[in-house]
Amino acid sequence: MGDLTAVKAALRAQRIETPSWAYANSGTRFKVFPQPGVPRTPEEKIADAATVHRFTGVAPSVALHIPWDRVDDYGALTAYARDLGIEIGAINTNVFQDEDYKLGSVTNPDPGIRRKATDHLLEAVDIMDATGSRDLKLWFSDGINYPGQDDIRDRQDRLAAALRETYGRLGPQQRMLLEYKLFEPAFYATDVPDWGTSYAHCMELGERATVCIDTGHHAPGTNIEFIVAFLLRAGKLGAFDFNSRFYADDDLMVGAADPFQLFRIMYEIVRADALDPAYGIAFMLDQCHNIEAKIPAIIRSVMNVQEATAKALLVDRPALRAAQQAGDVLGANAVLMDAYNTDVRPLLAELRTEAGLDPDPVAAYARSGYQEQIVAERAGGTQAGWGA
Amino acid sequence: MGDLTAVKAALRAQRIETPSWAYANSGTRFKVFPQPGVPRTPEEKIADAATVHRFTGVAPSVALHIPWDRVDDYGALTAYARDLGIEIGAINTNVFQDEDYKLGSVTNPDPGIRRKATDHLLEAVDIMDATGSRDLKLWFSDGINYPGQDDIRDRQDRLAAALRETYGRLGPQQRMLLEYKLFEPAFYATDVPDWGTSYAHCMELGERATVCIDTGHHAPGTNIEFIVAFLLRAGKLGAFDFNSRFYADDDLMVGAADPFQLFRIMYEIVRADALDPAYGIAFMLDQCHNIEAKIPAIIRSVMNVQEATAKALLVDRPALRAAQQAGDVLGANAVLMDAYNTDVRPLLAELRTEAGLDPDPVAAYARSGYQEQIVAERAGGTQAGWGA
Amino acid sequence: MGDLTAVKAALRAQRIETPSWAYANSGTRFKVFPQPGVPRTPEEKIADAATVHRFTGVAPSVALHIPWDRVDDYGALTAYARDLGIEIGAINTNVFQDEDYKLGSVTNPDPGIRRKATDHLLEAVDIMDATGSRDLKLWFSDGINYPGQDDIRDRQDRLAAALRETYGRLGPQQRMLLEYKLFEPAFYATDVPDWGTSYAHCMELGERATVCIDTGHHAPGTNIEFIVAFLLRAGKLGAFDFNSRFYADDDLMVGAADPFQLFRIMYEIVRADALDPAYGIAFMLDQCHNIEAKIPAIIRSVMNVQEATAKALLVDRPALRAAQQAGDVLGANAVLMDAYNTDVRPLLAELRTEAGLDPDPVAAYARSGYQEQIVAERAGGTQAGWGA
Amino acid sequence: MGDLTAVKAALRAQRIETPSWAYANSGTRFKVFPQPGVPRTPEEKIADAATVHRFTGVAPSVALHIPWDRVDDYGALTAYARDLGIEIGAINTNVFQDEDYKLGSVTNPDPGIRRKATDHLLEAVDIMDATGSRDLKLWFSDGINYPGQDDIRDRQDRLAAALRETYGRLGPQQRMLLEYKLFEPAFYATDVPDWGTSYAHCMELGERATVCIDTGHHAPGTNIEFIVAFLLRAGKLGAFDFNSRFYADDDLMVGAADPFQLFRIMYEIVRADALDPAYGIAFMLDQCHNIEAKIPAIIRSVMNVQEATAKALLVDRPALRAAQQAGDVLGANAVLMDAYNTDVRPLLAELRTEAGLDPDPVAAYARSGYQEQIVAERAGGTQAGWGA
Repeated sequence: MGDLTAVKAALRAQRIETPSWAYANSGTRFKVFPQPGVPRTPEEKIADAATVHRFTGVAPSVALHIPWDRVDDYGALTAYARDLGIEIGAINTNVFQDEDYKLGSVTNPDPGIRRKATDHLLEAVDIMDATGSRDLKLWFSDGINYPGQDDIRDRQDRLAAALRETYGRLGPQQRMLLEYKLFEPAFYATDVPDWGTSYAHCMELGERATVCIDTGHHAPGTNIEFIVAFLLRAGKLGAFDFNSRFYADDDLMVGAADPFQLFRIMYEIVRADALDPAYGIAFMLDQCHNIEAKIPAIIRSVMNVQEATAKALLVDRPALRAAQQAGDVLGANAVLMDAYNTDVRPLLAELRTEAGLDPDPVAAYARSGYQEQIVAERAGGTQAGWGA
Repeated sequence: MGDLTAVKAALRAQRIETPSWAYANSGTRFKVFPQPGVPRTPEEKIADAATVHRFTGVAPSVALHIPWDRVDDYGALTAYARDLGIEIGAINTNVFQDEDYKLGSVTNPDPGIRRKATDHLLEAVDIMDATGSRDLKLWFSDGINYPGQDDIRDRQDRLAAALRETYGRLGPQQRMLLEYKLFEPAFYATDVPDWGTSYAHCMELGERATVCIDTGHHAPGTNIEFIVAFLLRAGKLGAFDFNSRFYADDDLMVGAADPFQLFRIMYEIVRADALDPAYGIAFMLDQCHNIEAKIPAIIRSVMNVQEATAKALLVDRPALRAAQQAGDVLGANAVLMDAYNTDVRPLLAELRTEAGLDPDPVAAYARSGYQEQIVAERAGGTQAGWGA
Repeated sequence: MGDLTAVKAALRAQRIETPSWAYANSGTRFKVFPQPGVPRTPEEKIADAATVHRFTGVAPSVALHIPWDRVDDYGALTAYARDLGIEIGAINTNVFQDEDYKLGSVTNPDPGIRRKATDHLLEAVDIMDATGSRDLKLWFSDGINYPGQDDIRDRQDRLAAALRETYGRLGPQQRMLLEYKLFEPAFYATDVPDWGTSYAHCMELGERATVCIDTGHHAPGTNIEFIVAFLLRAGKLGAFDFNSRFYADDDLMVGAADPFQLFRIMYEIVRADALDPAYGIAFMLDQCHNIEAKIPAIIRSVMNVQEATAKALLVDRPALRAAQQAGDVLGANAVLMDAYNTDVRPLLAELRTEAGLDPDPVAAYARSGYQEQIVAERAGGTQAGWGA
Repeated sequence: MGDLTAVKAALRAQRIETPSWAYANSGTRFKVFPQPGVPRTPEEKIADAATVHRFTGVAPSVALHIPWDRVDDYGALTAYARDLGIEIGAINTNVFQDEDYKLGSVTNPDPGIRRKATDHLLEAVDIMDATGSRDLKLWFSDGINYPGQDDIRDRQDRLAAALRETYGRLGPQQRMLLEYKLFEPAFYATDVPDWGTSYAHCMELGERATVCIDTGHHAPGTNIEFIVAFLLRAGKLGAFDFNSRFYADDDLMVGAADPFQLFRIMYEIVRADALDPAYGIAFMLDQCHNIEAKIPAIIRSVMNVQEATAKALLVDRPALRAAQQAGDVLGANAVLMDAYNTDVRPLLAELRTEAGLDPDPVAAYARSGYQEQIVAERAGGTQAGWGA
């Protein structure tokens, strides 16, 4: 892809979804540090997401989290978002913050609690109907802390039943994204710990069930781009939850911990011609800005994904293939590294200018006065956070 | 130590300290599930700790956490504890839950915040004076989330200064225990990440500064018993924070995840003749019973440590040494495993009966009515938790 | 399973396969330390395997490794084994030690090398025909060391083609066992890194393709018993390669590093009624006794599996289920731990005595004079090792 | 350091040492793939090292490994190297490939073997005297594979004794570099597993004993730049063994797995003004080019270190400090990332041209005919490898 026109076209078409909860307060089990100006309502979160889109031009949708973003009138909420220039993206379910879910939601040994949890998943599909959202994203905190606490296999049966019922409720244009996570908040065994588990369930469910890769949810040493390549080949990669990590599920800004890994992931996307929104992969952020300013951190994260993508697009694929076929280990690696070592910031600045945006979105945001405005306006009330 | 009399004497002399906060509510960043009967005051936590001691006979002290256990009159609190049959153990400091500490406490770039944090450490020594506590336990959540966020080396200078000042405030019978932790809540770099860092600072400080090993604070693959053996040889092992983990700092019941590891740790203690309270090591629990009943979990944890200790005491050390000297790999390993594979529960039951205790502390607690009583009595008010 | 008669019957029926290569020399990349008495021929390896069976009574088959165990007349080799009282077990292929395989075997970019590698797999099926072996075990060292070195996805296509052709060659009573491994000898990406990859290929291939779990081939923090439970539920667990590890693929004696984990694995087997040989799972050892005496180490490993199995069989399953259904976290964990904490060595000794075996196989082997005999007899020639 | 003149001066002064054994054959425990043209003698290794220096201009010394590089006349070897334009660097000891060392060298339970091992260390100092080498590099494979195999603490006593004796033999201009390694070839416990152990021994030994950081020898999740910063502050960082890893001690080309980490490490060096050779840190490569062409891989590795260094030098330190002091998390991180995201290859090409070198060392080497020449000339004989 030496063709710079094609590179720029691909970058122009790129879409990154931001999550409503990243604009709200978050923290660790030790402390949540509130920040001034944090949104108090779903509408204020949407306004912040629209602001990120206004400065980056590539973030035209916002994911919602139910019940954190529950409103009476989802039609009105959708219209509000559209007025601000963005769409409602994935609907995220939450079956982990009710007292009932202490020992699990859809995998709980208690059938009544399973019923309640599954009903919440079905409610989320109602909200998809109301908002026009395409994607139902399922992450389960379900799991056990102690060996013997519950039966690992029975829990799979319960999980399969809840997924089946929910999948059956989806409309023909709607999809299920099944996320996996190795640990936390369950410590000994989670019920969807890895991509293999998610993949196996999705295969049983059908075509519209696909795997969501959260880049922070793997064991140390896991090669994430292998999973990306494998799922793309199998037609089962539905979405990303982007973030980055040094140790566990740190939820730092994507690209902050290992920018080379992000580039390798984006290269597998480019190599499979799966970058274009028409291909169907949802590229979402899922981050916690515990100590850094939230909106600038999200702008920066979007830019990090853009930079990794630009580098991936610049890989000289014919040269790479030639070196690979020739068994030229160093030569093939060098082709990849040449693209990675390129400074793509000027290219992206140019692209932004062509699109009528400021070439430096972080600086432009800082100058815009938006931050000062929300700090002033959002003085009273209760800031949004991870509590419902 | 084939001599069962000596084994029993050692087990009778064993002391395990329980932490006040383990009786209170705890959870993950996703959710704290409150439990009925949880204490609302330091006094109620002490009452629970005394209850654990009443059923186990080996837990005669309770660690306090400041400010969570702040009271007006520490003398009265100490007397209250003594009336219930237990002592005040280590004083734990908390410099991570104030807004000021978002970017660090004693290593914060702001000298005013460093002053405030150090003052809190000094206040903890005042409380030691008032309670007769011997041990000041320091754990710092200090660290950074992003590369470049702060200067790693400057933070060491600031840390050293705060430690020096605090160490200087200690009385001649008082000690400093410096804990380390690889990650969480800081994700990129913590300021005391490993035993080497803690050891180096303790060496600079002086004799009464020693390392505290929290069994959940290591990178995957770390051999904890090596650290135990090394610090014992160096005379720098001051304390344990016992718990167990499968992945990160899970804070599960000690011995729940890897009972063989706990046995190997206790073997190094026994091998160094460091089990006796006179040796000076504080064997403490530091756990979070997020989903399981708290008092029974702590009783069980105390029993787990006892069982691991009993097995360690049963190792045939002359036979082990002979096999080691002979280079008999399998033989030496077999000597260790013989002790580990022994069922020591009957021995401990006998020991309890001899001491006038119920041989099954968990069952005895369940029958005692204490749980029903605290659930009934502690109905109103605010349950204690990790908030100050 | 409080019924001790049933427990003993299950233990009597248990079968563990030992690998021919574990009797040969092995080591690390730094050094192979040869041992006196090590076999020089496939026949001598078989004789050692038969010796392990003679002392344990539960190891009646030996896995072969081609080309390490290549002979002219497999019928004669099989007869030789039978005369010694054991069967030929799984046929293991080796496509990693020929110069051609430097950049891969079945996934090599060079189609000629892929052809050669696949032909070796087909040859292994010929050997299965000749020996009556049921299981073809495939482990591929294939992978890449550097990002970009080869195309991850193309390699999956090549892998799938080779597996398909080999699967097609299998007879109706023959099975394919597809092993996975996270890393080593490839460092950046292996072509079958995890159970998900193996499972997905097996699903595509058909009923007689199943996953082989090597207990040393996972990322840190992976819950292996979850994988066991999941694959049992899916009907896709074909075999184990047992060993143990502290850090990477250490290939230590099974149960040596984490006996509790081995117990949890065997519990999932027992819980699925999958222990009996008729169920079809091959329980194999795959270990490297680099510094310890080989035959005693293998005897000990077989005993470790027996002890973990005995404990798993002793779990009070009705009580466990009741506690699980009641949401009694501590109670359910306690039921499991009660079985684990039981000393099952007397039970196994009794079982051996009833079967006419010595109750202490390690001691009996030491007394038997076999070791002295092989040291004396196997003086000249070339000791077997990992070289072909 | 916006001052480009200073940046270029620092880069011109930089020195990177290459290891003789990286030019020889290496592999994994599964297979060593020999390469055409590999050296057969210490002299041929030195010739290859001189070639790397000829094309890069910054690799003017070569580390030797005893006994692999044992010769009769070290004076002649040194003169030979000087004639080719390079010096003899660190002397590396090898106490892991003799049959005697199966259970350890300086920590072996057998005093005779300890004596032999220590004598080898003393011999290495003789070689330092003969070659003018400043640095004695000690890496011990010592450790144990099974719990109980040997006494962890006794082994520390033995280690300390051997180090003390060796340190006492050093001349006033000579130094000891003590390397640590978490695992491999020992699997359960190594005798110098981490920087803390190395540091503690070095502190006891004296000023000329310093820690050597091998970038591949840590547990997953370890923050290496923290260790760098800590040791620099303590004046105890003596050397690096550079390489890179995805999982264990992969010994890949430095910068290949995580170029951002290499940059962060080099930043700590720059921040402490410790880059200049006069500061005394030995920057060495320690790599295994198992499947890629060796000399080009080493050239590329040298360039990777140069690029990371150039980026580290470009960090705007006043701006970084200002943002850090202001608690501007995103701003401080952005300053660091700005330098990292810069494409420094043009700068380095310019520097090479100014120094009379080809701007593209890899291409220049390929054109030079050296590879074809050594393949032709080194046809007979025995290629050097890890065997003595």
